[in-house]
Amino acid sequence: MAKFVEDAGDDRLERLTRALFHETGVDGVYARTGLYEGVVEALAALISTYRPKGAEILRFPPVMSRKQLERHGYLKSFPNLLGCVSCLSGSERQIRGVVDRFEAGEAEWTDELDAADLVLAPAACYPVYPLVAERGPVPAHGLVFDVACDCFRREPSRDIDRFQSFRMREYVCIGAPDQIRAFREDWIGRAKGLADRLGLSYRVDVASDPFFGRVGQLASQMQLENELKFELLVPVKSEEAPTACMSFNYHKDHFGEVWGLHTENGDLAHTCCVAFGMDRLTVALFATHGTDVEAWPTPVREALRV
Amino acid sequence: MAKFVEDAGDDRLERLTRALFHETGVDGVYARTGLYEGVVEALAALISTYRPKGAEILRFPPVMSRKQLERHGYLKSFPNLLGCVSCLSGSERQIRGVVDRFEAGEAEWTDELDAADLVLAPAACYPVYPLVAERGPVPAHGLVFDVACDCFRREPSRDIDRFQSFRMREYVCIGAPDQIRAFREDWIGRAKGLADRLGLSYRVDVASDPFFGRVGQLASQMQLENELKFELLVPVKSEEAPTACMSFNYHKDHFGEVWGLHTENGDLAHTCCVAFGMDRLTVALFATHGTDVEAWPTPVREALRV
Repeated sequence: MAKFVEDAGDDRLERLTRALFHETGVDGVYARTGLYEGVVEALAALISTYRPKGAEILRFPPVMSRKQLERHGYLKSFPNLLGCVSCLSGSERQIRGVVDRFEAGEAEWTDELDAADLVLAPAACYPVYPLVAERGPVPAHGLVFDVACDCFRREPSRDIDRFQSFRMREYVCIGAPDQIRAFREDWIGRAKGLADRLGLSYRVDVASDPFFGRVGQLASQMQLENELKFELLVPVKSEEAPTACMSFNYHKDHFGEVWGLHTENGDLAHTCCVAFGMDRLTVALFATHGTDVEAWPTPVREALRV
Repeated sequence: MAKFVEDAGDDRLERLTRALFHETGVDGVYARTGLYEGVVEALAALISTYRPKGAEILRFPPVMSRKQLERHGYLKSFPNLLGCVSCLSGSERQIRGVVDRFEAGEAEWTDELDAADLVLAPAACYPVYPLVAERGPVPAHGLVFDVACDCFRREPSRDIDRFQSFRMREYVCIGAPDQIRAFREDWIGRAKGLADRLGLSYRVDVASDPFFGRVGQLASQMQLENELKFELLVPVKSEEAPTACMSFNYHKDHFGEVWGLHTENGDLAHTCCVAFGMDRLTVALFATHGTDVEAWPTPVREALRV
């Protein structure tokens, strides 16, 4: 019986993948259909209606400064997930030589790559903090940003809820610790309301990031104990292993310290963000309501205007 | 006098950059403001109203299969512009060792990168052709696709019309040579109409791609002689060096041959695309009409619904 259910489930996910995406030859990197993208756009517009008052809108390209990400400490925490941009450099003769040897089947051109000053952005909020650092003290009422970015994490997988390239939207808050805690608390409530309107089943639970290796397990444990991360989990593949579709992250003064962000009274600024996994939420919508958008529950269609 | 005009011009572009973007520490990679993104979105919606009947919508992530791009022959033509995704691989101990040596200032972590099976997409239409190849012969009426992608080209520059990371939208046509030529001819006319509605000055001229090196100069010359590429040029920085904001590219049977695309009668399929530089068009709009969108000419605002 268990076997039968499992097969049925796999088949359901397989059908879902075929309806929404086309394979591109690399696991976790899909061409997206118009059906799917229509809902991604509708969801982005719905989330915009929740934009906090006074939030500054910023949109980032899929690549960001390597130096900035190194300074963030990303390499210590998630070195296995990072994608670096590498290019051929040198004189015309050198580059032509590399290509000619590759075309002749004598050598891989990739052996000659040099790391550029860019990495693929692994999350949408990283570029915000250095921008804020240039602007002087954080005002007494705090700062809120609405950011979005195509993100990359090197986790090849055929799971429908784990792409290597995916889209993240975030509301980021920077200010005094009490402002930050209130913002996150408030947003856990709002996010539940949003999930209700989308007709999704969910639970919110304390969570941890997949810090690298054995040393990382300690960091994950600390994060759990201090309740620094919560996730809104939706059953996409199964009830037992639900998918984190939104997260609520309290960074304490980590980014404040790295970038020298201070409040007006001179204290280190604290930061938090609420992150919307745009692709995971969209997949969750199709997994829950099916691939015929016109047959989705009326309140969901009204919320999304689809 | 010439000096004065030049200074004034530089200052104008500097002001424009400051109003639309924030620097991120890497030339040609900018954080985009809400002001700018609002127009990008409006422009995308306007271009959608020109979508050819029956076009299939596909959206691609900013990374694509390295093997596919190699097979396209991109490396021979533009090896200097390509960005490859590279990652740390190996055992936990190996990766931890690389990071520890980097943190201790003993070695660059980037020396240990391995090329992944992904590159940054350099144009929006590359992933289309292998998808079409899986579907069998191209039907008699041809195929049309509406594609878009965040693209990357390694051209660090502080020019407002040359980003390393930029967005491209394309309408791609695949079919018999006469269909392809008609599609491109028709689109040169439509594009002029679109530029008129946007209130842009422009001219359409024959053009060539920046093929690499001395060998590439021959390819560029051939492309010009055979009138394979046209561009719609808008004066953004100056009248003398206008910016290519749209292009009309006839690939003849290049992609047909590489991917084995045939029409129903067994001939190699020909392909062409019309490409919209979303960032260049948006910069051109702001350069032409100023940074106060509410003061833009009424017909332009009506066309864009801004």
